[in-house]
Amino acid sequence: MASIKKVLIANRGEIAVRVIRSCREKGIETVSVYSTPDKTAPHVLAADESYHIGEAASSESYLKMEKIIEVAKESGADAIHPGYGFLSENATFANLCEENDINFIGPTAYAIEMMGDKTKARELMAKTDVPFPPGTESAMEDIQEAKKIAKEIGYPVLIKAAAGGGGKGMRIVHNEDLFEGSVKAAKSEARSAFGDDRVFVEKYLEEPRHIEFQVFADTHGNVVHMFERECSVQRRHQKVIEEAPSAIMTDELRKQMGDAACTVAKSCNYVGAGTVEFLVDKYMNFYFLEMNTRLQVEHPVTELITGLDLVSLQIDVAEGKELPFKQEDIKKRGHAVECRIYAEDPSNKFLPSTGTLHRHRIPAGPGIRVDAGIEEGQDVSIYYDPMISKLCTFANDREKAIDRMLRALDEYEISGVRTTIPFCQFTLKHEKFREGQYDTHFVPDHFTPENMSDFTDKKLAAIVSSVLRFRDEQSSTKSKPSGTVIEESVWWEKRKAVQ
Amino acid sequence: MASIKKVLIANRGEIAVRVIRSCREKGIETVSVYSTPDKTAPHVLAADESYHIGEAASSESYLKMEKIIEVAKESGADAIHPGYGFLSENATFANLCEENDINFIGPTAYAIEMMGDKTKARELMAKTDVPFPPGTESAMEDIQEAKKIAKEIGYPVLIKAAAGGGGKGMRIVHNEDLFEGSVKAAKSEARSAFGDDRVFVEKYLEEPRHIEFQVFADTHGNVVHMFERECSVQRRHQKVIEEAPSAIMTDELRKQMGDAACTVAKSCNYVGAGTVEFLVDKYMNFYFLEMNTRLQVEHPVTELITGLDLVSLQIDVAEGKELPFKQEDIKKRGHAVECRIYAEDPSNKFLPSTGTLHRHRIPAGPGIRVDAGIEEGQDVSIYYDPMISKLCTFANDREKAIDRMLRALDEYEISGVRTTIPFCQFTLKHEKFREGQYDTHFVPDHFTPENMSDFTDKKLAAIVSSVLRFRDEQSSTKSKPSGTVIEESVWWEKRKAVQ
Repeated sequence: MASIKKVLIANRGEIAVRVIRSCREKGIETVSVYSTPDKTAPHVLAADESYHIGEAASSESYLKMEKIIEVAKESGADAIHPGYGFLSENATFANLCEENDINFIGPTAYAIEMMGDKTKARELMAKTDVPFPPGTESAMEDIQEAKKIAKEIGYPVLIKAAAGGGGKGMRIVHNEDLFEGSVKAAKSEARSAFGDDRVFVEKYLEEPRHIEFQVFADTHGNVVHMFERECSVQRRHQKVIEEAPSAIMTDELRKQMGDAACTVAKSCNYVGAGTVEFLVDKYMNFYFLEMNTRLQVEHPVTELITGLDLVSLQIDVAEGKELPFKQEDIKKRGHAVECRIYAEDPSNKFLPSTGTLHRHRIPAGPGIRVDAGIEEGQDVSIYYDPMISKLCTFANDREKAIDRMLRALDEYEISGVRTTIPFCQFTLKHEKFREGQYDTHFVPDHFTPENMSDFTDKKLAAIVSSVLRFRDEQSSTKSKPSGTVIEESVWWEKRKAVQ
Repeated sequence: MASIKKVLIANRGEIAVRVIRSCREKGIETVSVYSTPDKTAPHVLAADESYHIGEAASSESYLKMEKIIEVAKESGADAIHPGYGFLSENATFANLCEENDINFIGPTAYAIEMMGDKTKARELMAKTDVPFPPGTESAMEDIQEAKKIAKEIGYPVLIKAAAGGGGKGMRIVHNEDLFEGSVKAAKSEARSAFGDDRVFVEKYLEEPRHIEFQVFADTHGNVVHMFERECSVQRRHQKVIEEAPSAIMTDELRKQMGDAACTVAKSCNYVGAGTVEFLVDKYMNFYFLEMNTRLQVEHPVTELITGLDLVSLQIDVAEGKELPFKQEDIKKRGHAVECRIYAEDPSNKFLPSTGTLHRHRIPAGPGIRVDAGIEEGQDVSIYYDPMISKLCTFANDREKAIDRMLRALDEYEISGVRTTIPFCQFTLKHEKFREGQYDTHFVPDHFTPENMSDFTDKKLAAIVSSVLRFRDEQSSTKSKPSGTVIEESVWWEKRKAVQ
């Protein structure tokens, strides 16, 4: 494979900017594509060239395969990086790139296909020693047969969509009476979400933790893992806070899970960056969940503990280069935490909170990394994922990384939209999180919108107190210490103004 | 010593913000002090409480010892962090803190005194095996005697102020005829800069590199070093670009110099964070230069390669805690580079370029650390050091750290003042720097203002092209690829507008 000179990034937001940064560091030219509302988005400004590809709806822009291939050819891009989401796990697109002699920076269409279908993946795993949760071996054909299996593995059980992800088409069934109704509901949801209503049954695990392994493979048969990330803090089955390493990981378990992750990658002749997701139950048994055949949102925590640049490595592998290390050369150090800062209202079911980002000042200083997809003055639109940025901290130990994150969240200035910041503050201060004793039920078990008020109020109080302090100082020439005292009544009076 | 609950930061700018960040991560309250023009400076906004202490001139504010002690007492601060500069190496202030039962976060007055005076430091070193450059053993009393010594060690020689630093009161003398005149000039400069005209003679080294070691000592007799920083890129004898580790360091030399650095710290019963500066000549001989008894501007590169938080450790040590590691536990990883972004005009002798920072958008993403002392919309004033920020990059190897810095410098958006960014770009792209083959003469040997035009023009061209692209897009509904082409005539027409 030839060396890559110009990359088209078939994505938007922070991940498009992220990819552009690595390209720039490697001296590779970049081409961005954008929909009409993204005309002035950061990924458009950051690239060397930008091309308009259509209207707001993803189906009219970021999912338009032929249009994107056309732009790649016109701009002379010799490779396409799909980021995550959109076309990143679309086997047809990977094939289309190949047919057009464009280097798709990702795995083969075959690997995407096998891992994108939970049933096929499960069939592949069955040929290996990678453990997966007991359940039906493939999509259920006969509901009575499935019911029998559910009884054998014991309630509660999970019904999951074969084509699923993000909790869609998923149901927890607590007893036999509810089984048939839940299957129907899951099928119907799966049909409308994925156009595919196949579902299967799986054991529901106790106190499950979501722990995933970053894997990397080159075209020369080398497969390595880069340790784990724990992503158990989820709202609506979607990750919000991730960390690396996991607080409960032992060297022995890491070895077993890391080996299993590499086995999964090998089973589909994987190439490039991938993530093998597992669930770990309260007895420290681990089970294969799925493999994501792309760069993961939370990849920065792995970069922070390993010092590696995963996007740069993706490009190297796509160029046909051999991985520059063996498993034993990959070292980890310290601890990293990522908070996803979404324009969402945690006090209102995490619903999107769209609007203009009137102020957006990112935290900085020691141990901070920010990947933002939107700039001050721009809009968080209704069309796409409402992520504002990913905020990561790094320190030599977990406690310090968490304290640093709390400092960073406190420094972060956003106005115009509500964000997940108060939710992140709640979680990072929670005893269970700090002790590392949490699982995927953390949010439903511990979080209610009322929990947040403490954090929100403190932040607002700080802003109001700054405002008052300046007003005081500007209307006075006294040089004696002014300190900061704020009357409760003034605070409540001012509160509306800053909300 | 009791635990510290509230720290007054007797400083301003990025270092005050830096200290506040670590305090916040440790749950320690913070008090800032400010002069009239600094009323709305970031260090004022960042602290829990802020006190006005006087007018613009440092002597009327940040150097007013009694006033600062008074604020510490009124605010209930139990400790003072002096940052760097101002009162950080003032033995009288350290004593004053002690007399007022305030914990001075720094070494003892004795250590400050001994190391602050080059002659005394040299006398201390003479009792150890730490090498220093041949020359007069103390300040010269008899000019004829000094001339004899200069002849013995061989021209060129250096004349240096005993109380000096930053190149003030320093002269290179190339032959005997110029000796007496240079001594007079150096004395006169030293008198006006330091109120102390003592000077001494030292061997002038060939191709000298400035390499310093970070040391740390606790009150229990433990002394360690945290590897070296190379700071040979200097303009007007002041550092602009630093890196860790040094490109020329070997394990053997590191061991020798690290041991010597610890010996220097022990010689004055040092406590806390300090830096032992050496010169290394072309034959890889190293010589003691001076010890800085404070946190150094360029400490972040050490933090990046070790993962440590030096300010946090300073506080721990000031509380009487033992260092949490032994020498062999301190590990380094990867490579870090720091560029000091000053509001200076590199094309005009690096003269300060004051004014309002109309735009200040910092780079972000993987491997970037920014410590800024000023925000968008604020003024770079004539009163203080014109540093805007310290930009650091980290990667697993030197080449990648440098490429990442070039990417970051390219991303950095500053308007309103001229900066050292084009100078940094020039240096980081220079063959000699990239090869690690540079010494303290790099700037005079390689840099002329003309070198910069390439870099400045490119940056401006990028801005103008963005502006034009948006104008084009907004006045057109075409969906065909727009690309980016810019006419030379338009470029020159627009150029004034963005300069």
